[in-house]
Amino acid sequence: MSNVKSAIVLLSGGLDSATVLAIAQAQGFKIAAMSFCYGQRHKYELKKAVDLVSLNKILRHVIVDLDLRQFGGSALTSDVAVPVDRTLEQMAHGIPLTYVPARNTVFLSYALAFAETIDCKDIFIGVNALDYAGYPDCRPEYIAAFETMANLATKAAVESSGNPIRIHTPVISMTKEQIIRKGLELGVDFANTSSCYNASEDGACGRCDACILRIQGFKTVGVKDPVPYRSNEE
Amino acid sequence: MSNVKSAIVLLSGGLDSATVLAIAQAQGFKIAAMSFCYGQRHKYELKKAVDLVSLNKILRHVIVDLDLRQFGGSALTSDVAVPVDRTLEQMAHGIPLTYVPARNTVFLSYALAFAETIDCKDIFIGVNALDYAGYPDCRPEYIAAFETMANLATKAAVESSGNPIRIHTPVISMTKEQIIRKGLELGVDFANTSSCYNASEDGACGRCDACILRIQGFKTVGVKDPVPYRSNEE
Repeated sequence: MSNVKSAIVLLSGGLDSATVLAIAQAQGFKIAAMSFCYGQRHKYELKKAVDLVSLNKILRHVIVDLDLRQFGGSALTSDVAVPVDRTLEQMAHGIPLTYVPARNTVFLSYALAFAETIDCKDIFIGVNALDYAGYPDCRPEYIAAFETMANLATKAAVESSGNPIRIHTPVISMTKEQIIRKGLELGVDFANTSSCYNASEDGACGRCDACILRIQGFKTVGVKDPVPYRSNEE
Repeated sequence: MSNVKSAIVLLSGGLDSATVLAIAQAQGFKIAAMSFCYGQRHKYELKKAVDLVSLNKILRHVIVDLDLRQFGGSALTSDVAVPVDRTLEQMAHGIPLTYVPARNTVFLSYALAFAETIDCKDIFIGVNALDYAGYPDCRPEYIAAFETMANLATKAAVESSGNPIRIHTPVISMTKEQIIRKGLELGVDFANTSSCYNASEDGACGRCDACILRIQGFKTVGVKDPVPYRSNEE
């Protein structure tokens, strides 16, 4: 058996998952990346996931096509408008419209299937419980429950002794500022990331929740965000 | 609020899920059915799922397209041959080649997403811990862990008080004989089901694990299986 273990990193192309990728690499894992084309309106992020893969040593990149739009129910996958210009306080209350039903559960389930077929026990996901306080599937207790379930779900888990499946969430309790600092420390070029819910080739909107959190984060760190913003909307 | 609750039934088109559908209906639920086109070689079962839907009062039928073949690792989704002519004793030991990595976890995750968008809290799945002793994701402890996770995963679960998501597994501890008896009692026409891993328009193979268990079940009940078997292979 090789001394170098492999890990799956769920790579959206956003700032958080780019940092998580760098953290997993710094921990010595060989990386298989997994991204999802799930009917998100901000498909632009997938281009950035592909850029990140091409710039890093990645064993394999699987982009899963799945259609969560069949169920609707979210501003990220339906025609409902993404809310803009919300204050941090507004974001902190309630579950936002951009919540996608069971999204992380679906994503982690695919990662679990992928992990089993490549004999991998470590899955990294860039969930964050602070910025996305309103998303139930970004909380530590949810992740712990998924991990428990995963260790009962698969042949690999059942047959392994003392080597359980682990769901790693290295940025779950970090502020955006801390995530950016950690990424910069590990050499992440944030120009190859996209956070905006309305992103396009022209840049980010600067007004959705994701942009507001990102802009605020870079401001606090005192570093210029290398991603362009569409000035006409600001 | 309506007094009649809705439930999602995972409907493969097999004997077990057809019986589960009848059980859910007998319990008074309005049914939304969900089937999966997941690269299974026995896609014929989906035709039977459609037949079952057309013969029953179903609110909505979602057939999800997903490609578990991207990961391989199973005789049901790859070019590995399905094992035939195994004895019940051989089936009872180890995890069979027909096990699909994390399949039920992926299926239940989709059901969870669907449930949330139609405001439904009850999900029925026809897993069976006896016939499929080798499948980790057919065991009660797995289902219980999934249910716990589900109740932490979604907006619907988080916002509901005293009305948790329930994963119903009414046939989990039944023998094939008991499932067939229950189905017949509830008026299930088993001609509209398909269990064979090698099924085609010409009939079932009669030799794969699923056929052997089904044939044995009908024999014990003492009723003729209405499904045709391809005689040239018997």
